[in-house]
Amino acid sequence: MDFFDVISVDEARKGTIKTFKEYKFDIEEVGLLESNNRILAEDIYSNINVPEFNRSTVDGFAIKSKDSHGASESIPSLFNILGEVQMGKATSYSIKSGEAVYVPTGGMIPEGADGVVMIEYTEKLDESNLMVYRSISTNENIILKGDDIKIGEIALKKGRKVTPEVMGVLAALGISKVKVYKKPKFYIISTGDEIIDLEEKLELGKIRDINSYALYSLIVNLGGEVVGKSIVKDNYELLRKEVEKAIKVSDIVLISGGSSVGARDYTNKVINSFNGEGVFVHGISIKPGKPTIIGEGEGKLIFGLPGHPVSSIMVFKAIVEYYIKTKMNIESIDFKTKAIMDFNFPSSSGKETYQMVKLKEEDGKVYATPNFGKSGMITLLSDSDGYIVIKSYEEGIYKGEERDVFLF
Amino acid sequence: MDFFDVISVDEARKGTIKTFKEYKFDIEEVGLLESNNRILAEDIYSNINVPEFNRSTVDGFAIKSKDSHGASESIPSLFNILGEVQMGKATSYSIKSGEAVYVPTGGMIPEGADGVVMIEYTEKLDESNLMVYRSISTNENIILKGDDIKIGEIALKKGRKVTPEVMGVLAALGISKVKVYKKPKFYIISTGDEIIDLEEKLELGKIRDINSYALYSLIVNLGGEVVGKSIVKDNYELLRKEVEKAIKVSDIVLISGGSSVGARDYTNKVINSFNGEGVFVHGISIKPGKPTIIGEGEGKLIFGLPGHPVSSIMVFKAIVEYYIKTKMNIESIDFKTKAIMDFNFPSSSGKETYQMVKLKEEDGKVYATPNFGKSGMITLLSDSDGYIVIKSYEEGIYKGEERDVFLF
Repeated sequence: MDFFDVISVDEARKGTIKTFKEYKFDIEEVGLLESNNRILAEDIYSNINVPEFNRSTVDGFAIKSKDSHGASESIPSLFNILGEVQMGKATSYSIKSGEAVYVPTGGMIPEGADGVVMIEYTEKLDESNLMVYRSISTNENIILKGDDIKIGEIALKKGRKVTPEVMGVLAALGISKVKVYKKPKFYIISTGDEIIDLEEKLELGKIRDINSYALYSLIVNLGGEVVGKSIVKDNYELLRKEVEKAIKVSDIVLISGGSSVGARDYTNKVINSFNGEGVFVHGISIKPGKPTIIGEGEGKLIFGLPGHPVSSIMVFKAIVEYYIKTKMNIESIDFKTKAIMDFNFPSSSGKETYQMVKLKEEDGKVYATPNFGKSGMITLLSDSDGYIVIKSYEEGIYKGEERDVFLF
Repeated sequence: MDFFDVISVDEARKGTIKTFKEYKFDIEEVGLLESNNRILAEDIYSNINVPEFNRSTVDGFAIKSKDSHGASESIPSLFNILGEVQMGKATSYSIKSGEAVYVPTGGMIPEGADGVVMIEYTEKLDESNLMVYRSISTNENIILKGDDIKIGEIALKKGRKVTPEVMGVLAALGISKVKVYKKPKFYIISTGDEIIDLEEKLELGKIRDINSYALYSLIVNLGGEVVGKSIVKDNYELLRKEVEKAIKVSDIVLISGGSSVGARDYTNKVINSFNGEGVFVHGISIKPGKPTIIGEGEGKLIFGLPGHPVSSIMVFKAIVEYYIKTKMNIESIDFKTKAIMDFNFPSSSGKETYQMVKLKEEDGKVYATPNFGKSGMITLLSDSDGYIVIKSYEEGIYKGEERDVFLF
């Protein structure tokens, strides 16, 4: 006895991608600092070598490395000091055998030199004579021209998130403006006669709106933007009006709540009342989260998420995040770790099951302990470290097996 | 031959905490949505039960669970339907043996009922007679009053980062304003005659400022704010002037660059020229990152970070992040995973060594491969997935051992 024509998580993901295969997220050009945590919308080619010259990584003397061969504390090699390289300046020195030039860290290596001996291993006899107490190998203490980034190569791929190290690469290339995806615009509608917002008085039978706040944070952390947020009573006309408004200003509409049959019917009818394909996913074999519907109206993606906070958050992670990641070519944004399951958990539901776990470390091993609780409880999430995914074809979890834990 | 009076990473961390033990990061009250990704500056006590009433997690009939015992597809139990609970309303129904009340998902459970049988396992004979085809256990499909969060308990601890699930808990408690730590204010100064900013022309011998951009991103992602950012030539007077300005407007000043002996001397002298303890860390036995100095001037924390991008980023992670986390009681903000080392790596340097690695997954196991490169190269980081920490007392890494990999 099932009210839903349920499909698998994978089918729901593919169906959504397929329906919106023509949908494009806009691209915008932003300043480098502004690009932090955004997603690159273009491959970044290097138009320079980094560095553009052979560069010393230490304070020391540039020499021909073979001139130092055999040098030691007891038998130093002798060099003729030509002079000093100025920081930030090109050098016109050219080194021949037996000659040395002082180069500070980051300074340019003179022509002819193929190694820098650290100042700690040298001794100046006078202004022009240097003793070297150590042998160096070819290119020791040098970053060669183009060693870091070569001219013409793809330095960063489209879909890469701008993290500190990516921003460092962009800065190294002198890129002051970068093309990133515009933040996807979301509109969150919480439905339910029992749902009240923060400022309202909590009366018996009512419950505070949890979902729209948790979804807000998920959206922002995913790189999206919340352009609207409202609570609507279980009423067809009111919900339709609000969705109509939402469609106009957003890329994705999330209708949360409506896990009861009646409320689900409203959501379904509302989505189908707009031009477009209407509801194309009527339930997903996911636990928690089954009563999820997905549709298209006026070209916009509309989700009917379950009312239970945990269900709604997990469906967001399973479907909405997947959609955004796929559309923006994001390689991965999940943090996961391996952990040893310290419990048996039969799961023959035929559903893709998201089981919350807590992690603990003992003797250098990480163990996952299940956190059972009802999906209506937000503390089921806030008391957990992450979750494991049990595929629909699996029979469950065996104690002792190692699995991926996706971290919150 | 060492120019530094180096101390361990642990000593540098403790020394910094000790010197700034009186330093307080201010607290501010922000709206709930604004609190996303901020750090709670107070324990959050619950002043309500969540939920405030026994609540159904399904659409179904509330009954006395023992009345269903023995019920099955072939031998249903018969119930008398009293009526229906309205969503969002308190109910005045009271159930006696043999009676049932319809309750939608999220609805209030009538007095006397201790279970809800899902609608799928029932059949209405007429308006007042119900057949139940399944036995339920006590409290089945009910979230009891206070099950999620109990009145008077600490729902969230000081130092907790506001993630989607934490925001959900705050919303559930009806907290519209929350006390969080003010964003720590950073001022970034890049030094070096060879350093140029994005808009300047790249001439031979010059190199683009990488560090301040990477540090900017690290600071923002740590929850800080960059109040100033500048490039200063290797000149005592210019640097002193800029640091003086920086101290006035920030909590922490990062002077990056100056890995050459001369530049390091400037930084040292500048920090010591202000009132206060001056430089108290003259080098850290960390690899990369040794030439790091830490000081106090006019009550503010001042770092002299190495000029190499990788060194400067790793010192930020090792020392600056630790400082902020400790001052704000943040439990953990690191994402790490266990991985099997697929290489031998002797490290008898006596330094705490941060080795960059790439991760690969094979047959469900995660392996870490070293990414060698010079610390002057930013791609050493952007091409890696994370890093392992080899403690100073360790002899290195053995192939096959499992270690924590800290993820970027």
